[in-house]
Amino acid sequence: MSKTVLYMSMSVDGFIAGPDDSMEHGLGVDGECLHAWLTDGDVSPESHRPAAGPSAEVFDEMLGTGAVIVGRRTFEFADGWAGDHHNGVPIFVLTREAPAQPAPGHARYVTDGVESCVAQARSAAGDRDVMVHGAATAQALLGAGLLDELRLQLVPVLLGQGRRLFDHLPAEVVELDPAEPTEAPGVLHLRYRVRKES
Amino acid sequence: MSKTVLYMSMSVDGFIAGPDDSMEHGLGVDGECLHAWLTDGDVSPESHRPAAGPSAEVFDEMLGTGAVIVGRRTFEFADGWAGDHHNGVPIFVLTREAPAQPAPGHARYVTDGVESCVAQARSAAGDRDVMVHGAATAQALLGAGLLDELRLQLVPVLLGQGRRLFDHLPAEVVELDPAEPTEAPGVLHLRYRVRKES
Repeated sequence: MSKTVLYMSMSVDGFIAGPDDSMEHGLGVDGECLHAWLTDGDVSPESHRPAAGPSAEVFDEMLGTGAVIVGRRTFEFADGWAGDHHNGVPIFVLTREAPAQPAPGHARYVTDGVESCVAQARSAAGDRDVMVHGAATAQALLGAGLLDELRLQLVPVLLGQGRRLFDHLPAEVVELDPAEPTEAPGVLHLRYRVRKES
Repeated sequence: MSKTVLYMSMSVDGFIAGPDDSMEHGLGVDGECLHAWLTDGDVSPESHRPAAGPSAEVFDEMLGTGAVIVGRRTFEFADGWAGDHHNGVPIFVLTREAPAQPAPGHARYVTDGVESCVAQARSAAGDRDVMVHGAATAQALLGAGLLDELRLQLVPVLLGQGRRLFDHLPAEVVELDPAEPTEAPGVLHLRYRVRKES
């Protein structure tokens, strides 16, 4: 079955954005360093993305997903990716209440909860994985036991303050099975499978 | 000069203890899993510590330090290590106010601030490093620009809630220079040098 896979760049102190993230500054104050790894190594001149090595592999895996689940905040801060996150795959925007305007392009708002959102995204992705993005969405899926894998791009920096990836979660131990980490310029790629209670 | 090196076991979501840590349960509810790596691999029957590999190296480095800086809470939760953390090196307990009872064994309370505490520990350690332990102490040294290295034992688990290692820090970017991470049973050993502004 299609797996739900969280992709997030995170500082060593656990932040995915600096303070005061907003429409104008989606990564918050000083948060841009979290995405510097995308261009710290060899960069493809056509795609402006990592050209080789572990960072290119992670990027390719991300682009190989068949659907995207994202929270309303992340979606709006990214200006909805103009309706196309990658390759025209459907974007499921998890939100409590849909705005009056329909979602652009391949995006649609999902208002009937995280279970429905994941079910729709899995169905749309077919045999490909579902990319999960954003802190609130990660927390919603984790809290509901619906996240299958974490792929964290650990950036060697402390931000001190900002938006945490892991926050507001219940006090429950979730065991993770690690895959081998890979190093690349400006980032350590971590992979974990979420162990499900059997 | 003697370096200050933080040694802490941390969950992937950034906790160094579960909720409700106390004298009775220093690692909080369900926090014991953070130290499971100490016995997850080959263990020396004499010392009850990792017998070989990266975890043994980290443990040996820790035991090679010439002084310990620790916060009052961590010190008390550990029952003051009966006055001897390792090899009789001096233990500097950073606290606002010393208790009436003198500190046991090789420990002493330091009440005149983090700069003095670090200076005393460096002096005592000679050409060896200073081990820094505990979340509050890590934060005090980081905030004062007095921490030189981080050695984090990243444990593949989410705790959801508990005591965070990185918390209450100013919104300032601190750049880290990573060394190559090493994997061992139940843990990923991360090492970072704190880049100082020149």
